[in-house]
Amino acid sequence: MHNLKIDGDRLWNSILETAAFGGTPDGGVRRLTLSGEDRAVRDWFRHKAETLGCRVSVDAVGNMFAVRPGSDAEALPIAIGSHLDTQPTGGKFDGILGVLAGLEILQTLQDAGYQTRRPLMVVNWTNEEGARFSPAMLGSGVYAGVFDRTYAESRVDAEGITFADAIEAIDYRGETPIGEPRFAAMFELHIEQGPVLEREAFDIGAVTGVQAMRWYDLTVIGRESHAGSTPMDMRQDALADAANLILTTQDIARRHGGMATTGQIGITSPSRNVIPGKVTMSLDLRHENDDTLQAMEQDVRAAMQRQCGERAVLTGIWDSPAVHFDAGCLAAIRDGAAAAGASHRDIVSGAGHDSVYISRVASTAMIFVPCKDGLSHNPAESATREQCTLGAQTLLNAVLAYGEQQ
Amino acid sequence: MHNLKIDGDRLWNSILETAAFGGTPDGGVRRLTLSGEDRAVRDWFRHKAETLGCRVSVDAVGNMFAVRPGSDAEALPIAIGSHLDTQPTGGKFDGILGVLAGLEILQTLQDAGYQTRRPLMVVNWTNEEGARFSPAMLGSGVYAGVFDRTYAESRVDAEGITFADAIEAIDYRGETPIGEPRFAAMFELHIEQGPVLEREAFDIGAVTGVQAMRWYDLTVIGRESHAGSTPMDMRQDALADAANLILTTQDIARRHGGMATTGQIGITSPSRNVIPGKVTMSLDLRHENDDTLQAMEQDVRAAMQRQCGERAVLTGIWDSPAVHFDAGCLAAIRDGAAAAGASHRDIVSGAGHDSVYISRVASTAMIFVPCKDGLSHNPAESATREQCTLGAQTLLNAVLAYGEQQ
Repeated sequence: MHNLKIDGDRLWNSILETAAFGGTPDGGVRRLTLSGEDRAVRDWFRHKAETLGCRVSVDAVGNMFAVRPGSDAEALPIAIGSHLDTQPTGGKFDGILGVLAGLEILQTLQDAGYQTRRPLMVVNWTNEEGARFSPAMLGSGVYAGVFDRTYAESRVDAEGITFADAIEAIDYRGETPIGEPRFAAMFELHIEQGPVLEREAFDIGAVTGVQAMRWYDLTVIGRESHAGSTPMDMRQDALADAANLILTTQDIARRHGGMATTGQIGITSPSRNVIPGKVTMSLDLRHENDDTLQAMEQDVRAAMQRQCGERAVLTGIWDSPAVHFDAGCLAAIRDGAAAAGASHRDIVSGAGHDSVYISRVASTAMIFVPCKDGLSHNPAESATREQCTLGAQTLLNAVLAYGEQQ
Repeated sequence: MHNLKIDGDRLWNSILETAAFGGTPDGGVRRLTLSGEDRAVRDWFRHKAETLGCRVSVDAVGNMFAVRPGSDAEALPIAIGSHLDTQPTGGKFDGILGVLAGLEILQTLQDAGYQTRRPLMVVNWTNEEGARFSPAMLGSGVYAGVFDRTYAESRVDAEGITFADAIEAIDYRGETPIGEPRFAAMFELHIEQGPVLEREAFDIGAVTGVQAMRWYDLTVIGRESHAGSTPMDMRQDALADAANLILTTQDIARRHGGMATTGQIGITSPSRNVIPGKVTMSLDLRHENDDTLQAMEQDVRAAMQRQCGERAVLTGIWDSPAVHFDAGCLAAIRDGAAAAGASHRDIVSGAGHDSVYISRVASTAMIFVPCKDGLSHNPAESATREQCTLGAQTLLNAVLAYGEQQ
């Protein structure tokens, strides 16, 4: 057992320091992937890692790997990874915390003259947000073989600029082959982006996986007619049907312990005094278990048939199966939290992260820390110095313990 | 008692003939008020009325009065009035039927050499639809003193043309003073624009009045958060609240025998995987009784408070009290329907009509005939030759009986 202690003030200062790259007047950060601001923070990261004795390599899609040698030259590294890009109206913590905590750990080890058996590696994955180039988690996806490199390079932003041109422009197309350097395991520290830890007053979430999620379009056809001359019992009101289905899908989600969200709704040719004839809305269903998600979808289809017959149609547009993180990594995280004096609970991530794709090629798990009001993708995104410190300490403990055991 | 019979084929042919003014390839009519098409049908109307022995006068807002003299030079006329303008995607019956039935009645009287005691008058009211110049029922409103003439003239269409310029352009600004010629009563024949008569298989509706109606904007504030990381029981979903309120307001309407419609709904910054933080929607409440409408509004406010507390706000934007038509006119309509061999029931209009404003200055009532599927403001708007004939015959019977009695 080690006695190493993260320097919370130093970590906090590095969060504030990097927030200047793309910082906005409202306290947020706008640092779109492969932009000038992204180049600046990448240069900062490279310089910082090199001063900590790392060799920094970059692959063809801009993923950055900073490796601190271990005592066993044959051993695969343990990775600490997340991302430095942000949403257009992003904050100072989403992704960034996980990378800066990695650098803080290397600094702590250096200050103590601590040598690990396995090399340690801090990774900055390119375009996690998907805000400039769709889809999200593109860099980690290419590394893990989910996406082709050429597919990534062909992605186009809103201004018509390709990923290939953008990475050339900031000079971050590297030579390291895709899929290298290999590593034994990855730990990712991230803000929760949800309210659970804060409301239940836990310091740490040991993230056991990522929920399965499915996206649908749901259309209801009614009969457009005059709001003044059509009695209630002679109506076929598409919006009333849609309202019923919104509430029914949420009841189904509650019954199964999952989630259902309608975030978009529109009436075709809306008019204040016309009964809606057609409503289109989104439906987002999630559950940590694939089979239960399938059962939720079946319940939704049955409810639609019961309430609307053939007038309601559900069309699936995206399907992402559940992800289950590595048991060994999770044990190290739970133990690491306990050693840090942090209260912790297991939690399932509702959002996607680089760890989703990395878990296909290496043992992986995540650590969540609370964030204020569950808010993220927002300039007001916030976590306290203490929360960040406990997260980084848990990460340090987990990485060292896992690296020695495996 | 008379033996006069409407010529249903002749009425039907005049409906088809005038549908050419602004006729559209889909069988509809686009005849916006004070347009070139409106001028053409106005010229047709004037010519037709003059061949039937009428003197045609026009007031400053283009209302047209075709008067057929009676035997009593001192008696005020009985008016038969509606409108010849249509919606942009209008049909062949809305408004038009009431004017053409008036001409058909004059033709029937002329053919029979029938002299009435009171003069008869057929009126074409300007801009009933309100589609080109808001508000609706503008010409009858000016006649009845509800709107100033200068207010009407200052109204502007979507292309920036004022009512005053538009009426000049088609040369239909007349010399007759506003509020003249006066008349003793008005009867308006109109399609129902709703499904009640058709579904209950009645030929005629004796329209006892027009529902009270109120328009509102309803806003619900929730808390925007991530669809994947916010458990169901930690959400403040503005759309779920709105869905509940849509259903609750409709339940309230049913309980009171009124109507509630939400025809517009929008989420602020909608996103498929974000729980809606703010929803704005319309609410249209109607009831034939003013006091009951007030009770409905109170129930809606109580339900909003109960379900959402201060997070839901209801803002009234329009309030139109109930209109009750004249008992004498209604008796003549019911008797007239019976004499025509037409089945009839009393009915309350859900939509506004020129008769609403005219009822403030003269005894007024309306006759409804069924229309297919309750459809109106639509090229597919349809009524049968037989339905139109029974309506016109009822109108003839009512006008003659009322004119002799009063």
